[in-house]
Amino acid sequence: MPLDHLGIAVRNLAERVPAWERGLGGRASPPEEVPSQQVRVSFLDVGGSHLEFLEPTAPGSAVARFLDGRGEGMHHVAVAVPDVDRTLEELAQRGFRLIDPRGRSGARGRRVGFAHPSAFGGVLVEFVEAP
Amino acid sequence: MPLDHLGIAVRNLAERVPAWERGLGGRASPPEEVPSQQVRVSFLDVGGSHLEFLEPTAPGSAVARFLDGRGEGMHHVAVAVPDVDRTLEELAQRGFRLIDPRGRSGARGRRVGFAHPSAFGGVLVEFVEAP
Repeated sequence: MPLDHLGIAVRNLAERVPAWERGLGGRASPPEEVPSQQVRVSFLDVGGSHLEFLEPTAPGSAVARFLDGRGEGMHHVAVAVPDVDRTLEELAQRGFRLIDPRGRSGARGRRVGFAHPSAFGGVLVEFVEAP
Repeated sequence: MPLDHLGIAVRNLAERVPAWERGLGGRASPPEEVPSQQVRVSFLDVGGSHLEFLEPTAPGSAVARFLDGRGEGMHHVAVAVPDVDRTLEELAQRGFRLIDPRGRSGARGRRVGFAHPSAFGGVLVEFVEAP
């Protein structure tokens, strides 16, 4: 299960991403809308893993509420799995609380599913199906 | 600059790490004391990158204060670099605010240095010298 990406909540991609590009090197991908999560995202390659910057597109969305409550910062960590539905099913069977009982459509056309933060001590964990 | 690890603050390693082992697979390393940061840490391999779990060993330490203020969760992200002193020097020259102007001794006998969270929009970024 490799680390696929680290999700970072920002208020504004255009204002925040350039510092990361200058600090770590590289260029982030053009912003992509992810309607199912009410965010606009941009990815920066960091040696094969990625940082995913998330800007909310709606005031009441999950990322907007995160920003209101905690400010900008790390939002979730994503692990790559071969079959996201199977991973979610196995976690549910072993008593892990989930947000998504089955995968749904995420950024970059990939299937994703989230565990509930309480399952992993306050950390929001996403499972992403490997391409 | 590959992602070296994601640091996760926990109140108690023994209580929190087993869920990560069961959820993602694998076994975390035996706890290691890092006196310079007043933490006890344990690493879980996640496809070559690692999750680093940090338990504070002193009440007023940085991680203890983080836990008091925000609760358990993601604390920092670490990027591997060939020469941590050189990276810190270059960042300082380009106007990035740093916690450590030079590398210091970190976990696993490696040299590390932290940028200030304000340099990267609220995210605490660590640079770790590759072994």
